[in-house]
Amino acid sequence: MTRSLANAELVIASHNQGKVREIGELLAPYGVEVVSAGFLGLPEPEETGATFVANAELKARAAAMAAGLPALADDSGLAVEALNGDPGIYSARWGGPGKDFDLAMRKVAEALGDHPNRRARFVCALAVAWPDGEIATFEGTVAGDIVWPPRGGQGFGYDPIFQPLGHTITFAEMAGDAKHQLSHRADAFRKLVAACFP
Amino acid sequence: MTRSLANAELVIASHNQGKVREIGELLAPYGVEVVSAGFLGLPEPEETGATFVANAELKARAAAMAAGLPALADDSGLAVEALNGDPGIYSARWGGPGKDFDLAMRKVAEALGDHPNRRARFVCALAVAWPDGEIATFEGTVAGDIVWPPRGGQGFGYDPIFQPLGHTITFAEMAGDAKHQLSHRADAFRKLVAACFP
Repeated sequence: MTRSLANAELVIASHNQGKVREIGELLAPYGVEVVSAGFLGLPEPEETGATFVANAELKARAAAMAAGLPALADDSGLAVEALNGDPGIYSARWGGPGKDFDLAMRKVAEALGDHPNRRARFVCALAVAWPDGEIATFEGTVAGDIVWPPRGGQGFGYDPIFQPLGHTITFAEMAGDAKHQLSHRADAFRKLVAACFP
Repeated sequence: MTRSLANAELVIASHNQGKVREIGELLAPYGVEVVSAGFLGLPEPEETGATFVANAELKARAAAMAAGLPALADDSGLAVEALNGDPGIYSARWGGPGKDFDLAMRKVAEALGDHPNRRARFVCALAVAWPDGEIATFEGTVAGDIVWPPRGGQGFGYDPIFQPLGHTITFAEMAGDAKHQLSHRADAFRKLVAACFP
């Protein structure tokens, strides 16, 4: 059985302050107190995994071992059907060393050209690791279509070219609350909450 | 918390008799009785997911709903680093409609050419779905190198061109027991057993 995280102290294995704050808010109702890997001065391991789940696992495991506390990591990205799932786990790396998502979005649009299949999925993998080696993982997805040109100024990453199924606006045109209801990260967190906060 | 599967009746969401038998043997010590989706006449859903986990989830969910029993599905494949993770979730499809793995292995070798990075990972995702919608997933991996020409007559799929790290023989040259100790499927089942048979 997955161990409960209720009222635990939890390391968020991320050096992104915005992500740490967002996760802290999501888990506050369960009495979880979060601390970031950056705050603890933990190193960032190389993401050598073959999948979103494997990368989330290696980040969570490294943080849990180093901190001696349970740790949560996420790994996420965009998988385009007609590109055989690219950019996938390389989603951030398509932006180059400067993590330039305007460049990354243009690369997706160019690779896709006028291919009739525009279908894509955002994927979010979450891993919770305990210092004794126990680990639990959760994956969430949301399906949509790639649009061009990019639309909207909210969100981040590939949000401006991703229009979720059943909607006529992109993730970057949605209010945060609307996106948070249907995002891949929300889907993964629902699964995590069901397993870790019984 | 993940619900226990101890002494449960479990549908294996596969039409591959060999796979159903192997899983049945793995789970027999836990009092689990398995029945195949093929035996129950359940349809095979289209594998439209963007990841191994997503495909395992959709197969497990479809079987659990149709049978009204908990169901287990697996989705697995080979991810080659220098090919950006290809063939990945398309590993079986690279063999064409006849599922010809001699063809699929040749495609991998041709795509890889003389690239100096031969690193690859087998990935296995397992999903257990309950008829009420609860779902738990587990992913296992094993790292190795792509060799050419293929070697060995045991195993199946890409086994003859996959040499696990720290070994000098391919998966297809290993006795079943040796492979079963270190395979991606064994890794995923260890995680499943830890969560579902407390």
